[in-house]
Amino acid sequence: MNRIGRLVCVLAVAWPAGAAEEAPLRGYAPESARVEREWEAKFRAIPDTQSLRDTMQRLSARPHHLGSPYDKDNAEWILGKFKEWGLDAQIEVFQVLLPTPKERRLEMLEPVQFTARLEEPAVAGDPTSGQNAEQLPTYNAYSIDGDVTAPLVYVNYGVPADYEQLDRLGISVKGAIVIARYGGSWRGIKPKVAAEHGAVGCIIYSDPREDGYYEGDVFPEGAWRPRDGVQRGSVMDMPLYPGDPLTPGVGATAEAKRLPLKDAQTLTKIPVLPISYADAKPLLAALKGPVAPAGWRGALPITYHVGPGPARVHLKVAFNWDLKPVYDVIARIPGSTAPDEWIVRGNHHDAWVNGAEDPVAGASALLEEARALGLLLQQGWKPKRTIIYCAWDGEEQGLLGSTEWAEAHAAELSRSAAVYINSDSNGRGYLYAGGSHSLEKFVNTVARDIEDPETKLSVWKRLQLQRIAESPESRQDARQRPDLRIGALGSGSDYTVFVDHLGIASLNLGFGGEDGGGIYHSIYDDFYWFTHFSDSDFRYGRALAQTAGTAVMRMAGADLLPYEFTNLADTARKYVGEIQKLLKDKQEEIRERNRQIEEGVFAATADPREKSAPPAAEPVPPFLGFAPLENGVEALARSAERYEKALAKAALGRASLQAANHKLIESERRLTDPGGLPGRPWFKHQIYAPGMYTGYGVKTIPAVREAIEQKRWTEAEAEIARVGRVLAAEAALIDGAAAELEKGATAP
Amino acid sequence: MNRIGRLVCVLAVAWPAGAAEEAPLRGYAPESARVEREWEAKFRAIPDTQSLRDTMQRLSARPHHLGSPYDKDNAEWILGKFKEWGLDAQIEVFQVLLPTPKERRLEMLEPVQFTARLEEPAVAGDPTSGQNAEQLPTYNAYSIDGDVTAPLVYVNYGVPADYEQLDRLGISVKGAIVIARYGGSWRGIKPKVAAEHGAVGCIIYSDPREDGYYEGDVFPEGAWRPRDGVQRGSVMDMPLYPGDPLTPGVGATAEAKRLPLKDAQTLTKIPVLPISYADAKPLLAALKGPVAPAGWRGALPITYHVGPGPARVHLKVAFNWDLKPVYDVIARIPGSTAPDEWIVRGNHHDAWVNGAEDPVAGASALLEEARALGLLLQQGWKPKRTIIYCAWDGEEQGLLGSTEWAEAHAAELSRSAAVYINSDSNGRGYLYAGGSHSLEKFVNTVARDIEDPETKLSVWKRLQLQRIAESPESRQDARQRPDLRIGALGSGSDYTVFVDHLGIASLNLGFGGEDGGGIYHSIYDDFYWFTHFSDSDFRYGRALAQTAGTAVMRMAGADLLPYEFTNLADTARKYVGEIQKLLKDKQEEIRERNRQIEEGVFAATADPREKSAPPAAEPVPPFLGFAPLENGVEALARSAERYEKALAKAALGRASLQAANHKLIESERRLTDPGGLPGRPWFKHQIYAPGMYTGYGVKTIPAVREAIEQKRWTEAEAEIARVGRVLAAEAALIDGAAAELEKGATAP
Repeated sequence: MNRIGRLVCVLAVAWPAGAAEEAPLRGYAPESARVEREWEAKFRAIPDTQSLRDTMQRLSARPHHLGSPYDKDNAEWILGKFKEWGLDAQIEVFQVLLPTPKERRLEMLEPVQFTARLEEPAVAGDPTSGQNAEQLPTYNAYSIDGDVTAPLVYVNYGVPADYEQLDRLGISVKGAIVIARYGGSWRGIKPKVAAEHGAVGCIIYSDPREDGYYEGDVFPEGAWRPRDGVQRGSVMDMPLYPGDPLTPGVGATAEAKRLPLKDAQTLTKIPVLPISYADAKPLLAALKGPVAPAGWRGALPITYHVGPGPARVHLKVAFNWDLKPVYDVIARIPGSTAPDEWIVRGNHHDAWVNGAEDPVAGASALLEEARALGLLLQQGWKPKRTIIYCAWDGEEQGLLGSTEWAEAHAAELSRSAAVYINSDSNGRGYLYAGGSHSLEKFVNTVARDIEDPETKLSVWKRLQLQRIAESPESRQDARQRPDLRIGALGSGSDYTVFVDHLGIASLNLGFGGEDGGGIYHSIYDDFYWFTHFSDSDFRYGRALAQTAGTAVMRMAGADLLPYEFTNLADTARKYVGEIQKLLKDKQEEIRERNRQIEEGVFAATADPREKSAPPAAEPVPPFLGFAPLENGVEALARSAERYEKALAKAALGRASLQAANHKLIESERRLTDPGGLPGRPWFKHQIYAPGMYTGYGVKTIPAVREAIEQKRWTEAEAEIARVGRVLAAEAALIDGAAAELEKGATAP
Repeated sequence: MNRIGRLVCVLAVAWPAGAAEEAPLRGYAPESARVEREWEAKFRAIPDTQSLRDTMQRLSARPHHLGSPYDKDNAEWILGKFKEWGLDAQIEVFQVLLPTPKERRLEMLEPVQFTARLEEPAVAGDPTSGQNAEQLPTYNAYSIDGDVTAPLVYVNYGVPADYEQLDRLGISVKGAIVIARYGGSWRGIKPKVAAEHGAVGCIIYSDPREDGYYEGDVFPEGAWRPRDGVQRGSVMDMPLYPGDPLTPGVGATAEAKRLPLKDAQTLTKIPVLPISYADAKPLLAALKGPVAPAGWRGALPITYHVGPGPARVHLKVAFNWDLKPVYDVIARIPGSTAPDEWIVRGNHHDAWVNGAEDPVAGASALLEEARALGLLLQQGWKPKRTIIYCAWDGEEQGLLGSTEWAEAHAAELSRSAAVYINSDSNGRGYLYAGGSHSLEKFVNTVARDIEDPETKLSVWKRLQLQRIAESPESRQDARQRPDLRIGALGSGSDYTVFVDHLGIASLNLGFGGEDGGGIYHSIYDDFYWFTHFSDSDFRYGRALAQTAGTAVMRMAGADLLPYEFTNLADTARKYVGEIQKLLKDKQEEIRERNRQIEEGVFAATADPREKSAPPAAEPVPPFLGFAPLENGVEALARSAERYEKALAKAALGRASLQAANHKLIESERRLTDPGGLPGRPWFKHQIYAPGMYTGYGVKTIPAVREAIEQKRWTEAEAEIARVGRVLAAEAALIDGAAAELEKGATAP
């Protein structure tokens, strides 16, 4: 059989989506590409749905939160598996601050007496839901201790814009306990903003509008959150820094120097407690005051009022403030020719309770990849670069395992890590790929080679068609741009320390969009729920293993690391345009509002029977000089074009490429600034960061964007200059890499 | 005291909003304007909030639906009042078909047994809510008799677009009973469209999302619909023809020729019954099948499913099909110099139950105007034109009183009626003015002279500021256009026969926008509710009397009828633009959908676990020749400009104006076509009509717009030509009126 025939035969079994097997592989010489494609095809044939199912059943069999017996048990089981598959594995242990509840109490004292249940009942037929001896109670980690009694105010999602609306209603939360619904921001933002406005306590509940019967039938009849279901979760101030609150910037080893608890900056300022909608309903029903604005109303069968009061609430929380061990399981496949270039792949193994979806759906795919790579190694596969598989612990409380490990290994990682590839939860549907835009083209090429289990299209094609269906804006891009855009990374999973702190190009991969569900961070996120309502036949678990594993192999085997910078430049240009528009919109909005104040619009349209406060006139934002950003983008675009031309002519023989590869590894580092972002030096990346007031949600070019959002104009000007310099430095580095390639160019 | 001093003094008492007392009055010679303004100021000082309150209390003291004892009693009381105030009044009686319930039954047979209550309970503290001996049961008038048992399907609002969505979900209503929520269209559309799709019965319920606790606290704690509240209402096919179903096009006098009941075209095709949300909840909760699309979900604490079934429902309704007397109370003030030019003013007096808001809030303002005009007559006021005040009966069941009266008097009205000014419900807030656009400038000038009771601005100014606040689109218009736009009239109140059937320029006036409430067509729309939750101090009742009465006087006293046609031309141009955009958008939408079908978007984005049917490709709509409409609009604009120039130079001495006034009265008639609209010849107006599938909602240039919406392209071309001719004829008439003015022009 000739080469094409053989390939087609392999492909017909392993990836019948009809991938571009003839197309050159970026960063690969033709012969290397042929070999790589053969190994990849073998790889993708290995992941097995029964194996994924067995792994999930094992890992989610008991509650396995950080510090629990089964968390350690799982870590040791994973270690054993890595070793069984021939990988060089070990457990690395860190000691982190972990508050667990001693006391939780929430009661309404007026106008009626009510004591919140604060418990998730077991569900008949769901065997693990009754393991209450091992379940963590419902709470928010890194709430401070507190005991407060105060009138209640409903603050919608509790984001800054909601407090502006409260101002317009003439309502203050000073001295009040606020009740906010989940959604609209990462949960940790809610107590932070509440405290900034003078609240003394914060209750967070799951409204059935976003997370209950409004969305679909509730568990166990359906996938959605039942009345007593509670979303646990961290409220650590992660936009300041994630990881152990006592060891910012350094690994929380046993001997690390620790802050005293009172100096930890990432604990909340006020006590916080999450509750179910069954517990929230009597509280919300007891509020009077203005009817909540239309956008604030949830799906409880009540008239939502804002308060304050007459509901008067007593909230008490107290915690054990212990150090607990984090068990990160780390496995290595040493690189054959470039052992000092690392491809890091991770997924956490700890959960809030049983965590079948979060994180075991992703963790079992990661383990399936490791098993498959072990088999390839036995067959003689030799990756050029070192591959490191990581099963993180303590993600749920604040990215503890990944952050402490990366802080502990910062020097080696900074030197060697070419990429970090993350996954977390997984479900049915469409490929979600977020990450560094120098990897946008790379992840697009991978996605073209993975078969979607439901449609038999490539996952790339299915995603493209979904983008066409989605909206007129995404449609045009999806049809005309060669690559589908990937989202920028905010926070909320273990890539954070890699991309934001160390400047390592990162990807976050997963499938989803078809499954709904409301078991997030509850006892109902378990094997029973997952096998009834999510990727029940584990075909998307297999697709995730195939996608992430292919990405790992293709990065590890390339002659030249397959970064691409024209998409980065295009994306940076888009961000700069967005920021310019943000300023212009703010100017127009404030100019218009001032004009309306002058015209008397607010006085004329206020209903005299309703209390309201018209907004105050404010200065129109000044014009800012965006030239440094614009020049930075243009330099980046020029260098990226030069690099593409150089690559097209480059001879991808090994000897000449080491210098180019080392420069390329540097490319994401150059997007960082050692000083970090204003007020949060841990965050070094100048293009991506979680927002100070979004938490998980990304802010791109964050220093400039947030300065404008928060009306700090002098800072905005300074940050424009700084980011402009970062972009120029990136352009210079890419020029350097291009020059390396030009040295070894083939004749035109 | 000089003239200005005297005027200021009067104005300071009567309308301190600072009106344009110096501005000339359109259609008035300077001296006539001075006299008119004095009488108007006297008029506006008369309406009295205590008097309005007393009238409301009297008229709403007992249920007074068509055919009830207190309906007749009210008519006689109103007659007595008109006479007491010195008006020449009489009751005109018509005999109309009125179905009243003999039997109403709604029960669920599977999966659980449930019998709907179908009753609104009395509320403690609300004295009239317990008058159940006289209350009409909850029902929809002009439902046919029926007794059906079938699976249930939830159809959202039950408009055509909802059935397209059901098609996409692969669900048919053939043989089913549908349950639709109120809203999204006039209620009569719901059974009509359901029957067109093969349903055998229709239940309509009030969802708390639009009409209950979601919006605000429920009665009696708040203004909103309580759990057992039901919206009665007519489901007659009014877009075909309103009024007595047995006497289309002719007055339902005792001796009128009547259709046999079986030939009446405006009864529903399937049985219909309205229910409360308390009664709807068990039915909706028992549905399975797909989860309802997000936009379909209401505020009940359930997961909304579409069905069909397993809920199986038995619906039985049977009615007495009797003729009942309609009592229209008609009062005249004969014109002093142009008795053959009529200013007609009306509001209905009948209600579904006690009807404090609907219609007594409007009817008591109308009576207050009549009282005030009676006082002016005693003081020597002599309107030039004849004024006719009408208190209609039988509006609720299908505009019966107004339609039969106007059909009976069609010949005189066609000859003489210059304008019909309507009102109906009334509340607090902003002036709502809809009507013929030849009256747009007129109603703007009136609104500038009325004081808003809450802000002390003119109601015009307050409305302008509200439009500025509303949206960027309305903002620009509100700031730049000299006149605020008025809405076109659809249907749903007594202006329908005047504007749509007879082509009489019409206005509909009322205040609202600040009060919310959910007592529409229920037993709770009563004096207790109104005086607790609406215009409780009757200041907006007074404002309505001042507005409508000023409009009546100013039309009746003008030397030259104050129509204005540049706004009409501008509006017609806007409508033609909208229709061109409608076609273009349809072309693009279908072209894009066909492309997506070809690309495989629908197959790729369908969740295999959910049943769905991709849309079928369909031909892209052809281009249509809009030139006749465009030429018609341009001709109209030129004539309107010519008329304005002629008016500016005209000497408004009486003798020369009779011919011009007679032409002007014709101007709205010219916008009709004797053949009427396609398939509904009763509707003669070519610019305004209620939509065949919106019911109350207006369709402008309806023949063309609906032909395009319903993809009847040949018809659309023909209707474009016809409406083009109508616009050209209107232009010619206006030219004629201008020529009359030019004859008597003053020297330039």
